[in-house]
Amino acid sequence: MGKIGVGLIGTGYMGKCHALAWNAVSGVFGGELKPELVTLAEVNEELAAARAQDFGFARSTGDWRDMLSDPDIQIISITTPNQFHPQMAIEALEAGKHVYCEKPMAPSFTDAQKMLEAARKSGKKTFLGYNYIQNPLMRRIRDMLSAGEIGDVLQVRLEMDEDFMANPDDIWSIKSGAASGYGALDDFGVHTISLLVALDLHIEKVMCHMTKPYASRKDCAGNQKSVETYDAATVMFELSNGGNGTLQLNRSAWGRKGRIAIQIFGSKGSIVYDQERMNELKVYKAQGNTAEQGYTTILAAPAHPPYDRFIPAPGHGLGFNDLKIIEVNEILMSLQGHKSHLIDFEKGISIEGLVHAMALSHDQAAWVDVAPALQTA
Amino acid sequence: MGKIGVGLIGTGYMGKCHALAWNAVSGVFGGELKPELVTLAEVNEELAAARAQDFGFARSTGDWRDMLSDPDIQIISITTPNQFHPQMAIEALEAGKHVYCEKPMAPSFTDAQKMLEAARKSGKKTFLGYNYIQNPLMRRIRDMLSAGEIGDVLQVRLEMDEDFMANPDDIWSIKSGAASGYGALDDFGVHTISLLVALDLHIEKVMCHMTKPYASRKDCAGNQKSVETYDAATVMFELSNGGNGTLQLNRSAWGRKGRIAIQIFGSKGSIVYDQERMNELKVYKAQGNTAEQGYTTILAAPAHPPYDRFIPAPGHGLGFNDLKIIEVNEILMSLQGHKSHLIDFEKGISIEGLVHAMALSHDQAAWVDVAPALQTA
Amino acid sequence: MGKIGVGLIGTGYMGKCHALAWNAVSGVFGGELKPELVTLAEVNEELAAARAQDFGFARSTGDWRDMLSDPDIQIISITTPNQFHPQMAIEALEAGKHVYCEKPMAPSFTDAQKMLEAARKSGKKTFLGYNYIQNPLMRRIRDMLSAGEIGDVLQVRLEMDEDFMANPDDIWSIKSGAASGYGALDDFGVHTISLLVALDLHIEKVMCHMTKPYASRKDCAGNQKSVETYDAATVMFELSNGGNGTLQLNRSAWGRKGRIAIQIFGSKGSIVYDQERMNELKVYKAQGNTAEQGYTTILAAPAHPPYDRFIPAPGHGLGFNDLKIIEVNEILMSLQGHKSHLIDFEKGISIEGLVHAMALSHDQAAWVDVAPALQTA
Amino acid sequence: MGKIGVGLIGTGYMGKCHALAWNAVSGVFGGELKPELVTLAEVNEELAAARAQDFGFARSTGDWRDMLSDPDIQIISITTPNQFHPQMAIEALEAGKHVYCEKPMAPSFTDAQKMLEAARKSGKKTFLGYNYIQNPLMRRIRDMLSAGEIGDVLQVRLEMDEDFMANPDDIWSIKSGAASGYGALDDFGVHTISLLVALDLHIEKVMCHMTKPYASRKDCAGNQKSVETYDAATVMFELSNGGNGTLQLNRSAWGRKGRIAIQIFGSKGSIVYDQERMNELKVYKAQGNTAEQGYTTILAAPAHPPYDRFIPAPGHGLGFNDLKIIEVNEILMSLQGHKSHLIDFEKGISIEGLVHAMALSHDQAAWVDVAPALQTA
Repeated sequence: MGKIGVGLIGTGYMGKCHALAWNAVSGVFGGELKPELVTLAEVNEELAAARAQDFGFARSTGDWRDMLSDPDIQIISITTPNQFHPQMAIEALEAGKHVYCEKPMAPSFTDAQKMLEAARKSGKKTFLGYNYIQNPLMRRIRDMLSAGEIGDVLQVRLEMDEDFMANPDDIWSIKSGAASGYGALDDFGVHTISLLVALDLHIEKVMCHMTKPYASRKDCAGNQKSVETYDAATVMFELSNGGNGTLQLNRSAWGRKGRIAIQIFGSKGSIVYDQERMNELKVYKAQGNTAEQGYTTILAAPAHPPYDRFIPAPGHGLGFNDLKIIEVNEILMSLQGHKSHLIDFEKGISIEGLVHAMALSHDQAAWVDVAPALQTA
Repeated sequence: MGKIGVGLIGTGYMGKCHALAWNAVSGVFGGELKPELVTLAEVNEELAAARAQDFGFARSTGDWRDMLSDPDIQIISITTPNQFHPQMAIEALEAGKHVYCEKPMAPSFTDAQKMLEAARKSGKKTFLGYNYIQNPLMRRIRDMLSAGEIGDVLQVRLEMDEDFMANPDDIWSIKSGAASGYGALDDFGVHTISLLVALDLHIEKVMCHMTKPYASRKDCAGNQKSVETYDAATVMFELSNGGNGTLQLNRSAWGRKGRIAIQIFGSKGSIVYDQERMNELKVYKAQGNTAEQGYTTILAAPAHPPYDRFIPAPGHGLGFNDLKIIEVNEILMSLQGHKSHLIDFEKGISIEGLVHAMALSHDQAAWVDVAPALQTA
Repeated sequence: MGKIGVGLIGTGYMGKCHALAWNAVSGVFGGELKPELVTLAEVNEELAAARAQDFGFARSTGDWRDMLSDPDIQIISITTPNQFHPQMAIEALEAGKHVYCEKPMAPSFTDAQKMLEAARKSGKKTFLGYNYIQNPLMRRIRDMLSAGEIGDVLQVRLEMDEDFMANPDDIWSIKSGAASGYGALDDFGVHTISLLVALDLHIEKVMCHMTKPYASRKDCAGNQKSVETYDAATVMFELSNGGNGTLQLNRSAWGRKGRIAIQIFGSKGSIVYDQERMNELKVYKAQGNTAEQGYTTILAAPAHPPYDRFIPAPGHGLGFNDLKIIEVNEILMSLQGHKSHLIDFEKGISIEGLVHAMALSHDQAAWVDVAPALQTA
Repeated sequence: MGKIGVGLIGTGYMGKCHALAWNAVSGVFGGELKPELVTLAEVNEELAAARAQDFGFARSTGDWRDMLSDPDIQIISITTPNQFHPQMAIEALEAGKHVYCEKPMAPSFTDAQKMLEAARKSGKKTFLGYNYIQNPLMRRIRDMLSAGEIGDVLQVRLEMDEDFMANPDDIWSIKSGAASGYGALDDFGVHTISLLVALDLHIEKVMCHMTKPYASRKDCAGNQKSVETYDAATVMFELSNGGNGTLQLNRSAWGRKGRIAIQIFGSKGSIVYDQERMNELKVYKAQGNTAEQGYTTILAAPAHPPYDRFIPAPGHGLGFNDLKIIEVNEILMSLQGHKSHLIDFEKGISIEGLVHAMALSHDQAAWVDVAPALQTA
């Protein structure tokens, strides 16, 4: 049985999520390759030490670079704010570590390209944290599409909405500044595109419109300050298979908490999903007696692997954190040379390229062909 | 108590629906003005006679023009295929009749304009059959918006989907021919725009993309024939209040039977509705304890007039045909000079103008300002 | 084509509902036998006259007995408070009229028996207003059961809940007095049993427990007065087919407006329905791939007759009042000697007998065999 | 910071669930007391060794008694089949270990009493695995009830249904034999009662009816063999607060996978919950404008602790296994002398006593007072 040493940078929302997943994966999946939780890095050294103990890391450090020269570490999880991803990922790759980085790769496309170059040069493996693609029901959708169960995919509608920016009285924060990126396009666009990629659906042409629900917000001093990011974005797109669709992204959508609503219309049926009910899948097949047709609501079950590795009984429900455990298991599979279901830097850069093509379309108020746009990017 | 004589042209889907509504309205609403069902017109004279008896019309005819000179008739219901609307409406108006015409006004914008001119000249009243705006819950939404209950309207998403054109094996029909119009834009676009109008939301700028799920269909002889209409259309729009939104229209959407899904995001809350559950309204208000916030599902009830005129108990449910009864009552209100909630030719032409502006946007693959587009139309 | 003259007693909730249905039935169904709305009776003569005009009755009267000798009337609709049913029904039958009476037959079982005797003696037809059985989806359930689509019926759970008696601050009303009957058992018990009867499921043994959510209420003078009726009742039962089930009835159930929730578990599948979503049926079949199994939500459609007589498009929705139109059409069918789907006094007395057997079970706090209980009743 | 040594017996469904929880709890909750996973016991020694490595246990054994004398172990998790609980729990307590035992305590009430005696004598702590009570939304319900937010609790309906025994073609298994207990009453009854206990609702009187969906099943040899257990049970009950309710339990309910449906009707509102959508709570409050009243669907969120310890964002969803992590954290809280929310042997025996009182009621076909029934048990 093999072991792989893990270093983790960050202890926030995603840092904790990674730590829990690395800690749980062997228990859930068994498997030949066992992660060893070696070092937890976090600027605040005391916090690092405390959380290392909670999470089961053997060591902790206030300087993430300590990991680079540590021979016990073979893979580094990066969960810091996006602007730190390029430096950390590149140095880790150069140090001969595999890299597991939270999405998106980088705020700028140029930096993302540098990360990819470093990956290619290193010969090491890279993995991006697109956890929603790991839902067993998402795999079920992929299998249904590839088996033609709903025929040709004609139209796909994706909505991703939350309300953490919905309150107009919240003060101007870093997320309202241009330095944080485009806005909803970065936060939610990449997630929704990752789902399309996971379903083997590829966007070729985009028409994007971004909007600012609130033109300005008060800063800490009580002065109105212009909002520079777009909390909402809508994208019309065409797919390489001849189908088409939309992305609707909004982080100021009151009432929505973790909505990722998917509608896929095919020539023989349709599929409907909403992440807020992540254990349910609705499938319509245009066959049989009309009097019996309707959407069938399928509850996640052992018949949808790897749900079975978590719970042997159907309808009992996975949670958001379980998706990360599946993701980490896929990483272990990949590291052992098995087939895995992940988005690496190669695929990841195409996702981010799409986001930039969308932003370009917004600026030009015109349709943009993705491929040439990326070449000139 | 007054009476008003009614003539009805057509006995199909909407003909029957009008007949039932004219017949039921006094029973449901009481009211000072009673409709008298005078004449039913239908090309097939025998059918006209049989259905006249069923529907309670005193007379029947195979020639709708018989009604024009009939002094017993003051209003004419037109429920024939769209291409007949202009001629019938214009002649009826010229004959001094009020006109109640099913939507849309006409396949061509020029004809719609002629209808409007005839209406203005006649001094008679005109009414269009936009029945979905009559749902008591739709009025409730309007009242909530105008009272600012969800704050400023920031984004509106409208989807209208059915699957009557979803089967690729269905043969080429008139609906696939260019003579029938644009496709989903006519069938569904006008309905969704009517809902915006009813909610006092006004589109200023559009970006439209129409698509053909199936490029060709077999004709009766078994030969492949090109499909000329667009069974699906997506529109991004900007509203005059600074908000924005989308229309997503698809008559080839397997699984959807009568879906009109509405999402309205405001600065203080949001509202969600789906016509397939026409007796339910979901409202989210961003107030109070976070632990208690969520969408409240409100069942149609006597507290939502005029539901109370149908049933004194809440949660018992209105049906699709009941909306037409409400519409007819609004017409009677209008004819008596009371305030009513209807779309006449003046408002109707702006709806159809919008559809044509959308089609123009599709042709140009560009954003189109609605106002100038209509002036040059 | 034949005609049948209708007299209607009552203009309240159900009076209006009957009137609307008698008025609409020919328009919706066509049919050979046309109802003629002859006379509307209502104690308040002025009201009778006004509503007769609204509803389309030719004449009105303040004395219902005027109808008995009217040769133009062949059937009398009785929609008055329950205590008046026996007298009116018996006299109408004796006068040679068919009788269409709202449920239940009578507050006392003895009176119900007298009504049945009168019916048998008269040779006239009788019909009870159990409208919920007329839902096209209820017919669909019946067809599924009789075709064995979910195998043997093993367990049936029925819940009927509303909240019109839920407010403890509402004053003592006639519904809290023993003279009004048992309480929930009369209001809701008979409806739920009618659904079982319509599904060809027959209760043989009952164990009932009735409860008073509020022991007393203030009367108009502000004094506490004991509540004599049971606003809630629970019944366990065994069916003649070997299956079993429950009724749960509550007219003090805050939040429920028109709930009639049905769960039918069979040896090959299950069926779930809720009247608050009366256009939806959920069906589970234990067949095929486990990964695809789930409840299919079927929307009411033309494939579920007689939905097609109302609307030619699926998923557009019938309303509560439409059920009464179907009921009246069934009556017209029956009067013409066609097969119909109705509950007459013969079946109706077994429903009310069951209610009395349930009350007996409550008094005895013991299981009661229905058949012998009724013989000694 | 303290440590507590854990021994775990069993590696099946619940064994794995315990292992994952013990392994994850510090990562999720931090906390002063850290579990050390000392020994995993499992009859199959090889399996024990393999799973110990997966789960993170330091040692493994084929003989659970090895743990009794191990000073490194302070608490023993028992997840073996129910019949082994008494012996293991009693010996563990006698050896001075705390005991964490899966529900129910024991197949026989006498054995459960012996377990309680052993617990009292030992002075050690006991914990039962009633994980459903740990759902943050269940705590929210408890808080709402105790704060009187829906007024007095008038009626509670609990349904627990799955379909693992629904297939009549499945062969006779141990679960169909009387040695396994009553049937649904043991499998599901105790869970539903635990929820009532957690909500501070106490059953005083019961009327129970158990049924066998299938009277016989084929055994391995193909011979029909009588089914001795009751796969379904219905219980009417009265609560000590004057309210009443029902349990409906069915492990042969096709289509239900993990349903625990709860309806609580109070004098000021109601609460509805279904475990199959374990991240949603529906609350109705009878206050404010009638036109706005309805059930509010609340998504699990950081505002419902300890959801916040898992995910900082609302609406992202916990899973079934997360409930066990909360349970283990409560155990750690309890062991440190903090307030905790758990069911120990004292409370647990009252749950099992209730089950036996229910079975007695079934045998007698009569209402049974719980308190005296337990005294004579």
